[in-house]
Amino acid sequence: MEHSVATMMNNIGQQAKSAAKRMVMVASDRKNLALQHAAALLRQECDAIMQANGLDMAAADAKGLSEALKDRLMLNGARIEAMAVGLEQVAGLADPVGAISDLVYRPSGIQVGHMRVPLGVIGMIYESRPNVTIDAAALCLKSGNAVILRGGSESIHSNRALALLMQQALRDSDLPEHAVQLIDSIDRAMVGALLRANAYVDVIIPRGGRSLTERVANESTVPVIKHLDGICHVYIDKDADEKMAVNIAMNAKTHRYGVCNAMETLLVHHDAMAILTPLLPMLLEKGVKVMASADICAAYAELPLQLAVEEDWRTEYLAPELSIRLVDSVEMAMEHIATYGSGHTESIVTDSYATGQLFLRSVDSSSVMWNASTRFADGFEYGLGAEIGISTDRLHVRGPVGLDGLTTQKWIVLGSGQVRS
Amino acid sequence: MEHSVATMMNNIGQQAKSAAKRMVMVASDRKNLALQHAAALLRQECDAIMQANGLDMAAADAKGLSEALKDRLMLNGARIEAMAVGLEQVAGLADPVGAISDLVYRPSGIQVGHMRVPLGVIGMIYESRPNVTIDAAALCLKSGNAVILRGGSESIHSNRALALLMQQALRDSDLPEHAVQLIDSIDRAMVGALLRANAYVDVIIPRGGRSLTERVANESTVPVIKHLDGICHVYIDKDADEKMAVNIAMNAKTHRYGVCNAMETLLVHHDAMAILTPLLPMLLEKGVKVMASADICAAYAELPLQLAVEEDWRTEYLAPELSIRLVDSVEMAMEHIATYGSGHTESIVTDSYATGQLFLRSVDSSSVMWNASTRFADGFEYGLGAEIGISTDRLHVRGPVGLDGLTTQKWIVLGSGQVRS
Repeated sequence: MEHSVATMMNNIGQQAKSAAKRMVMVASDRKNLALQHAAALLRQECDAIMQANGLDMAAADAKGLSEALKDRLMLNGARIEAMAVGLEQVAGLADPVGAISDLVYRPSGIQVGHMRVPLGVIGMIYESRPNVTIDAAALCLKSGNAVILRGGSESIHSNRALALLMQQALRDSDLPEHAVQLIDSIDRAMVGALLRANAYVDVIIPRGGRSLTERVANESTVPVIKHLDGICHVYIDKDADEKMAVNIAMNAKTHRYGVCNAMETLLVHHDAMAILTPLLPMLLEKGVKVMASADICAAYAELPLQLAVEEDWRTEYLAPELSIRLVDSVEMAMEHIATYGSGHTESIVTDSYATGQLFLRSVDSSSVMWNASTRFADGFEYGLGAEIGISTDRLHVRGPVGLDGLTTQKWIVLGSGQVRS
Repeated sequence: MEHSVATMMNNIGQQAKSAAKRMVMVASDRKNLALQHAAALLRQECDAIMQANGLDMAAADAKGLSEALKDRLMLNGARIEAMAVGLEQVAGLADPVGAISDLVYRPSGIQVGHMRVPLGVIGMIYESRPNVTIDAAALCLKSGNAVILRGGSESIHSNRALALLMQQALRDSDLPEHAVQLIDSIDRAMVGALLRANAYVDVIIPRGGRSLTERVANESTVPVIKHLDGICHVYIDKDADEKMAVNIAMNAKTHRYGVCNAMETLLVHHDAMAILTPLLPMLLEKGVKVMASADICAAYAELPLQLAVEEDWRTEYLAPELSIRLVDSVEMAMEHIATYGSGHTESIVTDSYATGQLFLRSVDSSSVMWNASTRFADGFEYGLGAEIGISTDRLHVRGPVGLDGLTTQKWIVLGSGQVRS
């Protein structure tokens, strides 16, 4: 590690740690005032932020970035207003910090329970989407954490302006300004330094595509909360209600295509094959390309189906494409999910209590559903109020991550003079 | 990484992952039967195990290991019986897997909640203490995980015998034998391979001294649940009950010396200094060496106190030694704890509601106590039934780690046909 990189990381890390120590104790109303003040500043400084964004956009044009990347990078009045509204929404959420649960008396006479506390210092690594700068800062601040932000280098001017604004909001509210810091260098070695800053950083959250996430996971010695693929399955059991099965399958695939909780593979018990008769034409009519196992292709030879290959079971299409397979049993469906799934979200449609219970217990995904569309796997639908991401990891937090996922619990003991004997 | 090391690790990892998949679904009574059967086998194979241990002990003699290390390594009838009883106790604990909590109806009509599930594959790295082999295997098995064990090389023969016995118990109970695997190689490169086996291992738990733990934490790309120092503090507030303060301080320091939840530094508000008049002679009489701040040394010049130096505040004595400092306020006490503490366990003695509340909320340690001895920071005292270690980390689990700490939660969604609109 170059000397200057190490020095920069140490400075940022120490400042974050000392800010985090102060943030633990900050009362809810003061955090909320800071968030509301940040919203006001965003509206007030709208022009200055668009100016900074203009520098990024010009550089993006010069570099010939794709239209999709430029669309993510671009800020306008409406998008800045949306960020301000987002800050106000986070201010309105319940504060998880300090909540006490499970306080019980033990035979020794002490009361033992848990208190929810901030994680400490969170490192966010994300692509060139300036809105993430505000969004992540708001959630980390509300949950009492300090955050170190590292956005994509193409958004450096926008991020600088937004991070300075958050710091001003913190200062004006008499909160530690280093609770929000941006790594203000496009040197990629800083990412490596952040990923090994175990002395300062409690968790790294990457937000972006697979290559970013994999690099972070492979290099980081700091714990990572990450989201990889969303290869979600719906299994239509032999005891499924036919109408419900068709509804759920259609919604899980066609409600939105580019989202991680969309269905990518439909598994159908061969005794429930009749549901394909209404379902396949509906999918095709919506323009969904269907890759089906040989038995289905044979049975519906009149339809323009494509024969599914092994690779289809492993593919997150994120598009109007769907693979469908017939299975002999719920066990075979679960085996398929265990082999090809990504542990994101799976749903069973069945009216059988025993089969539903088995599926719910045995399938090892961050969300397991029974008679509901996979599209419900979402922080807002689950009542989290906000979502910093969806974890496909196992440790600490799985599935949609809200404010609670940015906190941890300490033990508290209330006594009246008890000693160990 | 040498080819053979990589191959060995891949084999072990794949076997563990496939065992973990089966373990998720195993009912409680079958896990309990396997544990009880393992206890029976331990008693039955007592001689064979002592013979294997004899090989380790002979090698330890030849290598000239210290008496303390040899004592940890040595197995006899009583110790093997204690392991068997431990297995039976774990069998008697409640099974956390499958427990559903917080199931609520959402406006969409779906019910959303959590189900507790195993972590998956746990890597245990520990010193040459053969009892950990049984203890860790039992807790991992009960919580539905697969475990990969890597004990100290001096205990390789004992560990082999014990791991084979656990595998036999699993086979005999029709459970996957690879739910318990021992890295049967003393090649240290295997530890490095385990620490980077992100594809197979969900969490690494090191159990041993500081150098082992630090090596693991610095090298591991797999998340680590670890225990570093226990520099525990008791703070006697100005509003403390004098008798309670003396009792708690004596118990926290002198109940046992070599344990991580013993008090290492006593902080006393200067208005509560009078408690030192009875306390100091009691400590000295017990043979406790006292390092005190200058104001205390001056006030008790007649007592054989030693002047505390900066280094004392950072020291985990694990011995009949104690540092004592006068402070001006609870804030100064908390600042001292934040600067010098290890985030393990701190206790305040006070009758002031406001001061106690402030301490409880603000101190960032895995256990924070009010009017109780730090010695209560223990899985059994907290009602966990068993303890695989005490975490001084922040993510996932803090403080004593029991069966719950070896599990995680997935989301479950119960619907009646709901789709997203």
